Amino acid sequence: MECNYYDILDFQKLEKLWKINFINSITGFKPANLIGTRSKNNKDNVAIFSSVVHLGSNPGLLGFTLRPQDERQTDTYKNLKENSFFTINSINIDSIDKAHQSSKKYTNDISEFTELNIEQYNYKKFNAPFVRDSDIKIGLKKVEQHLLYNKCILVVGKIENIIVNSSIIEKDGNINFDKSKIVCISGLYSYYKPKLIKKLNYVKS
Amino acid sequence: MECNYYDILDFQKLEKLWKINFINSITGFKPANLIGTRSKNNKDNVAIFSSVVHLGSNPGLLGFTLRPQDERQTDTYKNLKENSFFTINSINIDSIDKAHQSSKKYTNDISEFTELNIEQYNYKKFNAPFVRDSDIKIGLKKVEQHLLYNKCILVVGKIENIIVNSSIIEKDGNINFDKSKIVCISGLYSYYKPKLIKKLNYVKS
Repeated sequence: MECNYYDILDFQKLEKLWKINFINSITGFKPANLIGTRSKNNKDNVAIFSSVVHLGSNPGLLGFTLRPQDERQTDTYKNLKENSFFTINSINIDSIDKAHQSSKKYTNDISEFTELNIEQYNYKKFNAPFVRDSDIKIGLKKVEQHLLYNKCILVVGKIENIIVNSSIIEKDGNINFDKSKIVCISGLYSYYKPKLIKKLNYVKS
Repeated sequence: MECNYYDILDFQKLEKLWKINFINSITGFKPANLIGTRSKNNKDNVAIFSSVVHLGSNPGLLGFTLRPQDERQTDTYKNLKENSFFTINSINIDSIDKAHQSSKKYTNDISEFTELNIEQYNYKKFNAPFVRDSDIKIGLKKVEQHLLYNKCILVVGKIENIIVNSSIIEKDGNINFDKSKIVCISGLYSYYKPKLIKKLNYVKS
């Protein structure tokens, strides 16, 4: 295969936007999720994230990263300081456009739910907003955060509840994504719909 | 939509394997990568990971998580203690089976490259092994690690070099995955091939 080679010294010479696109897309596909949070004054916020990562099953533990917060704090970060509960919600083909727009900076008093016509869903007394249309909705409580090398923040949350479209759960507990319209992301703005190629077996390690 | 609801108290009642499959698949799609490391005695190791996450573009910074290492240390973890350099390599359709088998525990003296017939690639004097067939190969140096809530470890690495199949790089720096055979993972053993649905624009936030 014919390859392009980039060494660390070349990185500085790359055009800024080209480099951002490139470095954001080389890790492969990323999950596409909307994260919902609520301020202490009950202002709700929802924003798109592609950095959700599975950390453990017992207890159910997920993480996601926030960009550096030293210059300007995002509503997601501010809300999580005031209220530890948050939700992670899947994004499907039909809602790509409005989900994508949620990365825009809205002033604190505007709820993206209202502004972008994303229908909110409340479950029992859980103190953060879910996204009604999402096939997978997860309610979590923040248990810790880590300040990383480049001032990004890793937020770790424990799963409190899970609400899933009944029709996409397989007998063995796996989600059958071919029965859903759930998408993934590459880079900053390319949305892909995956199709199952191969289901193997668990390799006992 | 008809939904299944699981509250934190229900989690304990779920059958163990069902629960592992379920909690591993609810975050959506995960990148599929082979991580290559080298011990101080020049023993090479390669293992599959679905937890690679983008952390920053300037400097280029990526992370990935390791399972808890207190009971048994993996070769990836041990090698990274001895030698900070590692590689992240994409997985394509044709190599799913051998990549998947790399999650098996081999004894320290066995190289998965040899055992699984994964062809190794060395680049200049970079002190970790790449995977020859991978369309995207990234060389990194570990800069820090974080012990997380459940004893998982987040390893953070700075990108030192990038080698990419020339035919899949777009003019704007994005990878065009439709021109590659690169796959993603859901859960522990389901491999998906994504197809581009929509490329939007960067939303200035």
